Amino acid sequence: MIKKTYKFSTASVDYYFEGQLSQLGKIVDKTHTVIITDENIFKAHGNKLKNWNTIVLKAGEEFKIQPTVDTIVEQLIELGADRKSTLVGIGGGVITDLTGYVASVYMRGIKFGFVPTTVLALVDASIGGKNGIDVGVYKNMVGIIRQPSFLLHDLSLLSSLPQSEWENGFAEIIKHACIKDAVMFKELEAHTLADYQKKKSLMTALIKRNALIKTKVVQADEFESGDRKLLNYGHTLGHAIENMYELSHGQAISIGMTYACHISEQLTGFKQTEKVVNLLSKYGLPTYAEFDKKKAFDILQKDKKKVKTEMSYVLLNKIGQGVVKNIPLTQLKNIIESL
Amino acid sequence: MIKKTYKFSTASVDYYFEGQLSQLGKIVDKTHTVIITDENIFKAHGNKLKNWNTIVLKAGEEFKIQPTVDTIVEQLIELGADRKSTLVGIGGGVITDLTGYVASVYMRGIKFGFVPTTVLALVDASIGGKNGIDVGVYKNMVGIIRQPSFLLHDLSLLSSLPQSEWENGFAEIIKHACIKDAVMFKELEAHTLADYQKKKSLMTALIKRNALIKTKVVQADEFESGDRKLLNYGHTLGHAIENMYELSHGQAISIGMTYACHISEQLTGFKQTEKVVNLLSKYGLPTYAEFDKKKAFDILQKDKKKVKTEMSYVLLNKIGQGVVKNIPLTQLKNIIESL
Ligand SMILES: NC(=O)c1ccc[n+]([C@@H]2O[C@H](COP(=O)([O-])OP(=O)(O)OC[C@H]3O[C@@H](n4cnc5c(N)ncnc54)[C@H](O)[C@@H]3O)[C@@H](O)[C@H]2O)c1
Ligand SMILES: NC(=O)c1ccc[n+]([C@@H]2O[C@H](COP(=O)([O-])OP(=O)(O)OC[C@H]3O[C@@H](n4cnc5c(N)ncnc54)[C@H](O)[C@@H]3O)[C@@H](O)[C@H]2O)c1
Ligand SMILES: [Zn+2]
Ligand SMILES: [Zn+2]
Repeated sequence: MIKKTYKFSTASVDYYFEGQLSQLGKIVDKTHTVIITDENIFKAHGNKLKNWNTIVLKAGEEFKIQPTVDTIVEQLIELGADRKSTLVGIGGGVITDLTGYVASVYMRGIKFGFVPTTVLALVDASIGGKNGIDVGVYKNMVGIIRQPSFLLHDLSLLSSLPQSEWENGFAEIIKHACIKDAVMFKELEAHTLADYQKKKSLMTALIKRNALIKTKVVQADEFESGDRKLLNYGHTLGHAIENMYELSHGQAISIGMTYACHISEQLTGFKQTEKVVNLLSKYGLPTYAEFDKKKAFDILQKDKKKVKTEMSYVLLNKIGQGVVKNIPLTQLKNIIESL
Repeated sequence: MIKKTYKFSTASVDYYFEGQLSQLGKIVDKTHTVIITDENIFKAHGNKLKNWNTIVLKAGEEFKIQPTVDTIVEQLIELGADRKSTLVGIGGGVITDLTGYVASVYMRGIKFGFVPTTVLALVDASIGGKNGIDVGVYKNMVGIIRQPSFLLHDLSLLSSLPQSEWENGFAEIIKHACIKDAVMFKELEAHTLADYQKKKSLMTALIKRNALIKTKVVQADEFESGDRKLLNYGHTLGHAIENMYELSHGQAISIGMTYACHISEQLTGFKQTEKVVNLLSKYGLPTYAEFDKKKAFDILQKDKKKVKTEMSYVLLNKIGQGVVKNIPLTQLKNIIESL
């Protein structure tokens, strides 16, 4: 277990790399800790949680909603959780988002930490302090920005992760490569998903590298006035079509990244669309898709990143260099419909 | 309208003293503002809110709960409120708490301001950034600390305030006098509630003085590690018996202050209990009351200010000088039962 501390504007976060869930007791005091996890994770790894206060939730995005928060609060009261308690979310992004949000409002805020158990949560959801819930069709409509006290990485927990969730996580990893890291893009081209699943050292290095890419971006712009927006690469259109077609998040943003490449061709002179498309395909992700462009644009307009008549959109100058552009909604509509 | 800006650790708050609700348009942009108020206030003053986007809630503490938050969020989405929107809570503490809380979590936090319409909200609830909701019997169990952008005082709104609410507010004013301001304690002794209700200049000065007492205490200790606890004078026992007997908040803390005087006699050598009791009575507040001490102590133990086996309790050294003491629960139990 290797401990590194990263400073954000409002708090410091301890990252424990190459750790094990069994070492959690070294980080928090068992008697003042409540673990929050979901049924899938508890089924696969519950044996490691004996003698910990544990709240087990139903799994899935559809439970990342206020009624689940209400349930957690009730259980925390029953368990006697107080201002000295720490919540530890052990799970994917749904669990880390819920845990961070509840911890931020329970008794006006108690400590929390995460043990991310999906690739996506390891490289993305657990980092940056954005925690929240969905309201109807609106993702993360309610939430808060507040940093966890710690992150504990135990990659052995990925042994039980379904293949589709690996792909979701790698979509975010490819996103990082596109906006920030041309060297990693090449590394990903040189390997396959199976390589990473088999070779522990390769995976460990990749996860750490990606966790630090996101960390750096957030450190530079915690409250999303600029650079942090880069992390939305592929996500604006992605979110719109994710709802429409019940695509997985990775699939949706993969298509979103592909389209953002094409929009970039028109607005930044980007010339490497084919490389991006090939890499996405190599990692099992869809790229081109038929979709109802009018409807997608309608949803996109209601996206909370909208400010009046323009929309900030993440494009690529070249692989490894993302850029945020404000595109007038009318122009964006024309481009999308023409693609 | 006199503008003064007060700095808190995380934000600055503009206080507009001696203002009018009709000047709200000078502070916020009408098209990007949503007002939140309750039926009583809307009935009395709704004519001043023409052409503002307004959400009118049912009045009362029993609606300071999550389902009301859910309703507000739904309506904000419908109204198209986005990250550039400002919420303005016009009302008593229930409205300011709800508004501040919703604004802190909607889209991970948007701006908000308050126009407090009760004495209690003017001198207490609107100040300090603590905003939250109740969960079952637990008051303010869920919430957040985040400062409003502005406070606008319009004392003419008090014209419609019921007498019992005036008394509630004056209980907090007497609290301030007890813990921080012996001179104001004398002023209160020299006047009656009717004086303040009749004489605008007297009331204006009193409200401002009290708003600044709370402001100073909070500035010195925004996250309640020390001095801010003084504001809980009368509240620990007060909250316990408030639930048990359906007392008003002012009545409950008045009894709580009386008992805290007696506990002070034993632990700090406080000698002015009679003066405090007389002042409370003069302002229409109850002081001594029969109550089930065992039950009250039980509830008190579950109070969120509990830390392990001790309880921090606010006592008086003398009028104008409050002090926080950690009292072992067993000792506290004995003292309360012996009174
Ligand atoms: N806060 C942020 O900054 C941020 C960033 C990106 C995504 N997110 C959020 O993250 C969520 C998506 O995260 P996710 O993809 O991890 O979703 P998830 O938490 O739903 O996990 C995906 C599935 O994998 C299961 N699972 C997780 N770990 C497992 C394991 N080790 N073994 C077996 N099964 C396991 C889960 O039960 C679930 O069924 C979304 O709600 C998204 O909004 C948040
Ligand atoms: N956030 C804080 O720091 C803080 C501090 C103290 C109290 N509080 C909270 O404040 C709440 C109590 O505040 P409150 O006493 O103002 O309660 P309130 O908001 O319920 O108002 C009391 C009653 O007066 C009515 N009313 C308000 N203004 C009126 C007016 N001008 N004319 C006619 N009727 C009017 C209301 O509709 C309500 O029926 C509690 O929920 C308490 O927890 C919060
Ligand atoms: Zn994503
Ligand atoms: Zn009070």
